[in-house]
Amino acid sequence: MPLPQAGPPAAQYTSASARQVTEYTGTSARLLSALRRELPEGALSTGPEATAPYAADRSGSRPDGTPLVVVHATRAEHVQTALRHAHALRVPVVPRGAGTGLSGAANAGAGSVVVDLSRMNRILQLNPEEQTAVVEPGVITAELDRAAGEFGLRYAPDPASAAISTVGGNIATNAGGLRCAKYGVTRDAVLGLDAVLADGTLVRTGRRTVKGVTGYDLTALLTGSEGTLGVITGATVRLRPVPESTVTVAAYFDSFSAGAEAVSALTAARLEPSMAELLDGPVLAAVDEAQGTDLRARGGALLLLQCDGRSAAAEAALAVQLLGEHAESVETTADPVEADRLLTARRLALPSLERLGRVLIEDIAVPRTQLAAAVREITAIAERHDVRIFTFAHAADGNLHPILVLAPDLSGVPEAAWRAAGDIFTAALRLGGTLTGEHGVGTLKRQWLGDELGPEQHALQRRLKAAFDPHGVLNPGKAL
Amino acid sequence: MPLPQAGPPAAQYTSASARQVTEYTGTSARLLSALRRELPEGALSTGPEATAPYAADRSGSRPDGTPLVVVHATRAEHVQTALRHAHALRVPVVPRGAGTGLSGAANAGAGSVVVDLSRMNRILQLNPEEQTAVVEPGVITAELDRAAGEFGLRYAPDPASAAISTVGGNIATNAGGLRCAKYGVTRDAVLGLDAVLADGTLVRTGRRTVKGVTGYDLTALLTGSEGTLGVITGATVRLRPVPESTVTVAAYFDSFSAGAEAVSALTAARLEPSMAELLDGPVLAAVDEAQGTDLRARGGALLLLQCDGRSAAAEAALAVQLLGEHAESVETTADPVEADRLLTARRLALPSLERLGRVLIEDIAVPRTQLAAAVREITAIAERHDVRIFTFAHAADGNLHPILVLAPDLSGVPEAAWRAAGDIFTAALRLGGTLTGEHGVGTLKRQWLGDELGPEQHALQRRLKAAFDPHGVLNPGKAL
Repeated sequence: MPLPQAGPPAAQYTSASARQVTEYTGTSARLLSALRRELPEGALSTGPEATAPYAADRSGSRPDGTPLVVVHATRAEHVQTALRHAHALRVPVVPRGAGTGLSGAANAGAGSVVVDLSRMNRILQLNPEEQTAVVEPGVITAELDRAAGEFGLRYAPDPASAAISTVGGNIATNAGGLRCAKYGVTRDAVLGLDAVLADGTLVRTGRRTVKGVTGYDLTALLTGSEGTLGVITGATVRLRPVPESTVTVAAYFDSFSAGAEAVSALTAARLEPSMAELLDGPVLAAVDEAQGTDLRARGGALLLLQCDGRSAAAEAALAVQLLGEHAESVETTADPVEADRLLTARRLALPSLERLGRVLIEDIAVPRTQLAAAVREITAIAERHDVRIFTFAHAADGNLHPILVLAPDLSGVPEAAWRAAGDIFTAALRLGGTLTGEHGVGTLKRQWLGDELGPEQHALQRRLKAAFDPHGVLNPGKAL
Repeated sequence: MPLPQAGPPAAQYTSASARQVTEYTGTSARLLSALRRELPEGALSTGPEATAPYAADRSGSRPDGTPLVVVHATRAEHVQTALRHAHALRVPVVPRGAGTGLSGAANAGAGSVVVDLSRMNRILQLNPEEQTAVVEPGVITAELDRAAGEFGLRYAPDPASAAISTVGGNIATNAGGLRCAKYGVTRDAVLGLDAVLADGTLVRTGRRTVKGVTGYDLTALLTGSEGTLGVITGATVRLRPVPESTVTVAAYFDSFSAGAEAVSALTAARLEPSMAELLDGPVLAAVDEAQGTDLRARGGALLLLQCDGRSAAAEAALAVQLLGEHAESVETTADPVEADRLLTARRLALPSLERLGRVLIEDIAVPRTQLAAAVREITAIAERHDVRIFTFAHAADGNLHPILVLAPDLSGVPEAAWRAAGDIFTAALRLGGTLTGEHGVGTLKRQWLGDELGPEQHALQRRLKAAFDPHGVLNPGKAL
């Protein structure tokens, strides 16, 4: 949730002065001296002008101050060197890919060390026979997908940020996306990781085979740990065949509830669409206002569905038949250009909302059958707190993005928006759901985390963090 | 690997005398007294006759002595009570499902507490709309699958032991099976867990939604942890639609290598079979000898393939075409009875080998393209150590089961068999593979574990264990 200037308690390391500019003293000076001695020329950025661009991610929240130094790693050894010294001197370290996160997990406050992994951006191996790739963490997600495409393969995880986010960042947040209803989230694509631990030790987790059960599953544990357990310096990922064909269906419904029911009907019919995006009426109206379209006149909700694979046409035909019982109108196409036109509403939803004000993107997930109930709750919450909330959903996953739109001239987040966000989280938990389907906890959802985990599991997770990072130098104040 | 009477160093808790029969002293007496006071009548078995059946799993290895007590839990609270007291008194606890494990992970030595979960065998919820089930750990895996089948769904993980093993045991070992080439291993089917920690605390991990990234992924961490991090007392699992149709293909090849190449050709053609079992010539000869068939005369290796889903027929047709370029002969059928006949060789492979002597089942996995190389290594190892090794493989996964057949009258495992097993592990690692594809580490593979994990990751895994179980009471001497 983007929260300029306000938000939950800031990270633990904001006590250091943000004003130190060129004169470094004490710990900072010792750390810089060690890093300058051991890292290559050009690997460090210091001074507030140079480090300020690395202070925040795309959550809209900002930490207090600017980082002490940015380490532009080009090899795992650079990460090890940075962590070894930061660990010895107890200086907080914030790993960073492209900084596109939406939860504040890559925010780096005064006195911290940013480990910038964006220059470790090589695809080291792409093995079409094994359908695997070995990559550095800074590879742009869409680049990997494109490279795999040359062999008729693809990297399945497709967060909306794929064109600008990194594979390493996606792993650190266990990113989702549009295709994960059928193909799973990032975790499902990761076979093994290279990770640097807090003290600079490099470990190699998981495996390079598609199957294996040796030892505890540290690969899964690191995936989604938001840089609090280790810094990912390499990954072996699984690729998948590009589907033979894809058919796109667009269906308009009287209401969001009717659309949600239609999606349930598809699930009940054992269909597994590769995409099922459901947009509510207010989103359609916002797109109309921005783009001059007439979507809202056609229905109170729009479902955009894709079926893929060898039986895409048969599945889509079945889907159209089932949707016909619930929908106002249904269109379908196997033509990519026409499909792109149908998907316009989804692609333009967020930009259209951004024209209306400052957006705060929420990310709850509920059991799939509770989708309509969740939207009813969200509507009631919007009325109760007098805030504007627009919702679209990855409907086959039960993952909703309620988007609060605030007045653009506000500095800080109004108390009503905070209360609405809190009520949305509470509603998600009450419906058997979760605080975050795919964006992560970061700094912004920490205050609600305990409600979901319960005190015992929360305590266990803290012990686990301590087993990895006894001095708490890795991305403190995040995720947990 | 079944290892009667011999094997790697026994578990850490074998110092207590195995001869205590009815007179319990000290810690044992205090533990029994507490358990008798707090648990219901009939929940405890004591005395060597009653506890001996709970001393070993199906690995063939046996611990020293018999357990002190078996707690037949029927509720999570019973598990909590047992663990709370065992933790306070530092008595080792061995969780047990059906005891069908093949790695010694459920072996329970003298003085230990077995927590028997087989009576917690209720399917608490089966939700066809959500395609999820909530189960107690003692539910037999095939029972869950059958119950799901009433709604056109299935529980995808299908270890060979499905008819006798439990869902909880499958989760504790992250069991694989025949279908996991396409549908993943047990971990991929588990959404959330209830687990009792070493001190008796109950935690609820994961989620009941299909998507969610709150907190560290303790669900994945507990899955495959072989009872060393917690005792699973409940699980929310994902169900999947039963495929519309299944087509079975049987292809004979000149050699195992030719069969392995054919499987690579299928992968290269972007086919995703739901099953690809490859049996070598010696296995076929053993089946012939036991069953009076003529499999070996038809080829030096047999591939049994299944394609499923809406496009099963089209995929199978493509597979037949590709296999034709490598195979001696190919048969195909969509008829279940005929399919069952084709699958006979696979089903009877192990029983046929068991007629030849005592079998030790290995379980390495290698990158898929290294399958033929792995079998060449295994053949050389068999010759070098003069032991008989028969191999079949889940070929689409790169998961091989080399089966050592020893003289039936031997007590203990000959040194040559140990050396052969060690060489097989070393070869797997050299080929980029792993010690265990799906059976787990247990006690039997512990001595090779460090070779795969490396010292840094091994140390990290031990710290992680300590974060869960500081006094090491949970299944000590296993998995790590």
